[in-house]
Amino acid sequence: MKKVNNIAVLTSGGDAPGMNAAVRAVVRTGIYHQLNVYGVMYGYRGMLKNEILPMESKSVANIIQRGGTILKTARCKEFYEPAGRKKAYENLKKHNIDGLVVIGGDGSFKGAQKFSEEFDIPCIGLPGTIDKDIAGTDFTIGFDTAVNTAIEAIDKIRDTADAHDRLFIIEVMGRDAGYIALHSGIATGAEHIMMPEHKSDVDDIIADLQANERRRKLVNLIVVAEGHETGGANGVAEMIKHQLPNADTRVCILGHIQRGGSPTCQDRILASRMGYAAVNALLEGTHNVMVGIVNDRIHYTPLDHACKAKQEMDPEWVKMCKILAS
Amino acid sequence: MKKVNNIAVLTSGGDAPGMNAAVRAVVRTGIYHQLNVYGVMYGYRGMLKNEILPMESKSVANIIQRGGTILKTARCKEFYEPAGRKKAYENLKKHNIDGLVVIGGDGSFKGAQKFSEEFDIPCIGLPGTIDKDIAGTDFTIGFDTAVNTAIEAIDKIRDTADAHDRLFIIEVMGRDAGYIALHSGIATGAEHIMMPEHKSDVDDIIADLQANERRRKLVNLIVVAEGHETGGANGVAEMIKHQLPNADTRVCILGHIQRGGSPTCQDRILASRMGYAAVNALLEGTHNVMVGIVNDRIHYTPLDHACKAKQEMDPEWVKMCKILAS
Amino acid sequence: MKKVNNIAVLTSGGDAPGMNAAVRAVVRTGIYHQLNVYGVMYGYRGMLKNEILPMESKSVANIIQRGGTILKTARCKEFYEPAGRKKAYENLKKHNIDGLVVIGGDGSFKGAQKFSEEFDIPCIGLPGTIDKDIAGTDFTIGFDTAVNTAIEAIDKIRDTADAHDRLFIIEVMGRDAGYIALHSGIATGAEHIMMPEHKSDVDDIIADLQANERRRKLVNLIVVAEGHETGGANGVAEMIKHQLPNADTRVCILGHIQRGGSPTCQDRILASRMGYAAVNALLEGTHNVMVGIVNDRIHYTPLDHACKAKQEMDPEWVKMCKILAS
Amino acid sequence: MKKVNNIAVLTSGGDAPGMNAAVRAVVRTGIYHQLNVYGVMYGYRGMLKNEILPMESKSVANIIQRGGTILKTARCKEFYEPAGRKKAYENLKKHNIDGLVVIGGDGSFKGAQKFSEEFDIPCIGLPGTIDKDIAGTDFTIGFDTAVNTAIEAIDKIRDTADAHDRLFIIEVMGRDAGYIALHSGIATGAEHIMMPEHKSDVDDIIADLQANERRRKLVNLIVVAEGHETGGANGVAEMIKHQLPNADTRVCILGHIQRGGSPTCQDRILASRMGYAAVNALLEGTHNVMVGIVNDRIHYTPLDHACKAKQEMDPEWVKMCKILAS
Repeated sequence: MKKVNNIAVLTSGGDAPGMNAAVRAVVRTGIYHQLNVYGVMYGYRGMLKNEILPMESKSVANIIQRGGTILKTARCKEFYEPAGRKKAYENLKKHNIDGLVVIGGDGSFKGAQKFSEEFDIPCIGLPGTIDKDIAGTDFTIGFDTAVNTAIEAIDKIRDTADAHDRLFIIEVMGRDAGYIALHSGIATGAEHIMMPEHKSDVDDIIADLQANERRRKLVNLIVVAEGHETGGANGVAEMIKHQLPNADTRVCILGHIQRGGSPTCQDRILASRMGYAAVNALLEGTHNVMVGIVNDRIHYTPLDHACKAKQEMDPEWVKMCKILAS
Repeated sequence: MKKVNNIAVLTSGGDAPGMNAAVRAVVRTGIYHQLNVYGVMYGYRGMLKNEILPMESKSVANIIQRGGTILKTARCKEFYEPAGRKKAYENLKKHNIDGLVVIGGDGSFKGAQKFSEEFDIPCIGLPGTIDKDIAGTDFTIGFDTAVNTAIEAIDKIRDTADAHDRLFIIEVMGRDAGYIALHSGIATGAEHIMMPEHKSDVDDIIADLQANERRRKLVNLIVVAEGHETGGANGVAEMIKHQLPNADTRVCILGHIQRGGSPTCQDRILASRMGYAAVNALLEGTHNVMVGIVNDRIHYTPLDHACKAKQEMDPEWVKMCKILAS
Repeated sequence: MKKVNNIAVLTSGGDAPGMNAAVRAVVRTGIYHQLNVYGVMYGYRGMLKNEILPMESKSVANIIQRGGTILKTARCKEFYEPAGRKKAYENLKKHNIDGLVVIGGDGSFKGAQKFSEEFDIPCIGLPGTIDKDIAGTDFTIGFDTAVNTAIEAIDKIRDTADAHDRLFIIEVMGRDAGYIALHSGIATGAEHIMMPEHKSDVDDIIADLQANERRRKLVNLIVVAEGHETGGANGVAEMIKHQLPNADTRVCILGHIQRGGSPTCQDRILASRMGYAAVNALLEGTHNVMVGIVNDRIHYTPLDHACKAKQEMDPEWVKMCKILAS
Repeated sequence: MKKVNNIAVLTSGGDAPGMNAAVRAVVRTGIYHQLNVYGVMYGYRGMLKNEILPMESKSVANIIQRGGTILKTARCKEFYEPAGRKKAYENLKKHNIDGLVVIGGDGSFKGAQKFSEEFDIPCIGLPGTIDKDIAGTDFTIGFDTAVNTAIEAIDKIRDTADAHDRLFIIEVMGRDAGYIALHSGIATGAEHIMMPEHKSDVDDIIADLQANERRRKLVNLIVVAEGHETGGANGVAEMIKHQLPNADTRVCILGHIQRGGSPTCQDRILASRMGYAAVNALLEGTHNVMVGIVNDRIHYTPLDHACKAKQEMDPEWVKMCKILAS
């Protein structure tokens, strides 16, 4: 087993709260094991442009509680071309880097997988995305913060919905995954939750709104995932207005607030454990895996299996959600 | 001076955080002075429909910290017709109500003014609106909470803007008033603030963004009031994209989260003082005024002057804002 | 299997954020299954005093986001006497109650266990305690909220510690369990974490503080569990001051803020799932168990095994914590 | 009038949220006017030790929302000796500093006053203290954040107080000033507020608690300022326990959380305006004044008058507070 001496860490793709906690863990665990640790700025783009900086313990002081990523992030098409990866490799070699930790989503893992196949630099992936849609882990860094940000926002919206007896259609993030919608919807007692993974019949929702109106339940919240086939909150609003022209309806798109903010306790611990495990994996010669958490234990998944998960929603949750909001 | 014995309180128009604190103050100050206090549900609509309930001290326990309004609110066109007001008057008389406290905005005050001209029920207005656009008061109930909600959201957006070196265009509420935009923009260090009261030359903004790009300042926040002539954040985004097609731009519309949430310390105290003063005004025979705060003292303005304020923005603030964000 | 028709729910012992979400889930799941649901006020005391009220779906509207418990809670010595339990039973029988859901900690479960042994009323326990020290479940209702409240407070303290280069000794709750200390300590990057379950050598801590001083790391946070053998934060402070008389040291006891506040997303969902499962368990004839969550699945533990857990702290976590804070 | 070319800024005494926003405003306004701006680390101590660093616009990027102070703060006895001030002066002269902005409390202003009398360096003071006890200004930087932190904490405590029908005695900061107690007490509906400026008869409080008990109002919050003659919350608790031995009483000392955290909108704007005005004052030749805000306008007070204020509490507020909490 080849010894690792110099490692680099980067954040890639959409940022997620907790990425800084993961970077901190990688840097400090590396330094503890007497490795030289480098930070690559702007994800893969920084590898191509040789924006690679040495990190000390102090470089990551006082960041565990910060949203965003001190290493910044970017998307980089060039890295998905062989020539780009070669250039990246050459830059890493200039610093004698022999291990790489990539914090990002499934797209970033695909890049890392390709890169590690072509060059002799082992890569470890850490799932950093608010969407929680990665196979091989129960949680991703940023998800818990994003859902808590969403519920704080929805709680505020319920205050005004309740004051006015209004119907609100609230769009949350998650791309084509419904986890943020499902969790934030249950936690706020939303009357309806529309997830991409679960066919919602808008006619049923309208029938239900009409039934609620008859029993004078006029405050209704619909939480819809941005990737829902109807086109998100605006699409749903249009369909409802068409059939219930007198409904007092408002649309809120929570947007990028879900990507920022100080990470929750769970995200900070998750990120710390994953960053710590990533360095240990490199030291033990475990290569080209994603570090996940399964049943509260560290779990390694080969990078090429750590793709976007097509998890089914538990039908019991969907049933529960309907019963509890009634 | 006619003695007041039975008073009613209602919330009208758009809800604002702190309305509950004001209701609590009216109820408890009334009870302290041995008045009977009634709550009217759904604003003027409840006067027309006789949804008028007796309030006790306990009715308003544990609400000072709650967003929304326990009395609910609504808009009511019928009240702006003489027949509607007559019906409302008759319902108040059924409960022997001889004083009315209306918590709302300038539209609600116009209604109250008309009503008190036609009938012998003195009305006191309390400025409850997040927009802070009422003449005769330095602050309105809800404004401080709304701007704090806005800055928490914008701080989160800056996290992700900073991670990606992105331009964000953020729309805040305020209808045709720019106070929320101005205050939240300064407090978050926004690079540009676009208020309806102040002509912004989009060409200047674009020139500035280009200058920033040249000096590698790529993170830029533009805070725009919903009532800005460009059509809010989406309008601004379109103009920018047209001239800077390569800019990595995102739009966030903060929306109704600005209307909800637990009120800040300042809004709770403001609402408490105003509610307390409103009852004292009724007892002292001061009629048909709005209770305001000017230079931290209670100030009464005749209801017909308590219209929407056309306050000018202090040019020094605008200059400061530009200097500090540079 | 005897059919259940009328069930009651109560909260007992120390309150925990999320109890309201659990009450809501019990009430609405019960109503969905056409049961009559009663709320018992003030825990077992309300059973003795016959403070038992019928609950409707509306009784639990708009409470999922509230801290505290609408059913209130109390400790009740009388219930731990046979005569007390007999009186309680007779009161339940007046309402024909044939199933009971008890939300509380291990002390409350012991009472429920005794009660169900003596009388023919099946009891289901839900673990509601911020301490997370109950066997048979990975999480308890309120723990996640409490640690997030703790880290928000500690983040604030770090601001001022950092401004002054000070040592802070921060006491968190948890009685004789160290989970809150461990989780909040890791999540805030505390330099030392003192848990009752894990022997901390104060001499080692002092040696470490001295080493940090030599390398000019003057900001240090020590998070200590209230049940630590040294007597909590004040005890630790005294020992440190004795040996490092010049240290600029401050003590903060976070106290009861950890018991209140709006529950986190995780606590709301946990409580909802548990309340939902409790009613299903009663309907299925599963008696005298505690509903827990193990590996994200509902798990039943006989009430007499759902005692205080003597869980060992994972030594890997303790090691990680030291490495990451360095 | 001597032209100013090189200015320095420091934070001194206890830190307060918003100090960073003030530093940012001084730095950027100075740079805008083509001054060289220096940051002095650790208050006056940094002047003595020549810890004086040049500041750029970027040095203060992304700090407006941060608690604490990037310049750090300390107390420095040596500066209160003539020899210490001489040394400080010599260090400033090494950098040709000809203007100084001191952000701190009345103690820091006394130092600045002495210094400016002895040497030809004009000083401008900015009131940075959570205690709001400085003459010549309506608000101090940090007060609004501190009271909002206090009310969030007290709201959480009310949740658990309400669940248990308990009496809580809550100690807030403010040294010998009662502003934090008064504002946070009103805003949380505290049943009693004990301020150093206002004699509270503990016998009256106890009589009131007994009266409340008779009418079954068992949840009571007492907010007491740390500088109250009874010795703060612990002192009050002892007196109450002595006379009401059966009361279920808890003490919470909110402590240093009140000094940290992200500043509120008001504190950020206040600090920005004051920092901006401080540099303008130096440029205009206004010397040895404190910048205050009176009736929302910038107001200058000679430094030797900017001492601790002995403001009287408005008796109307005290009366209102009692009426509203009843």
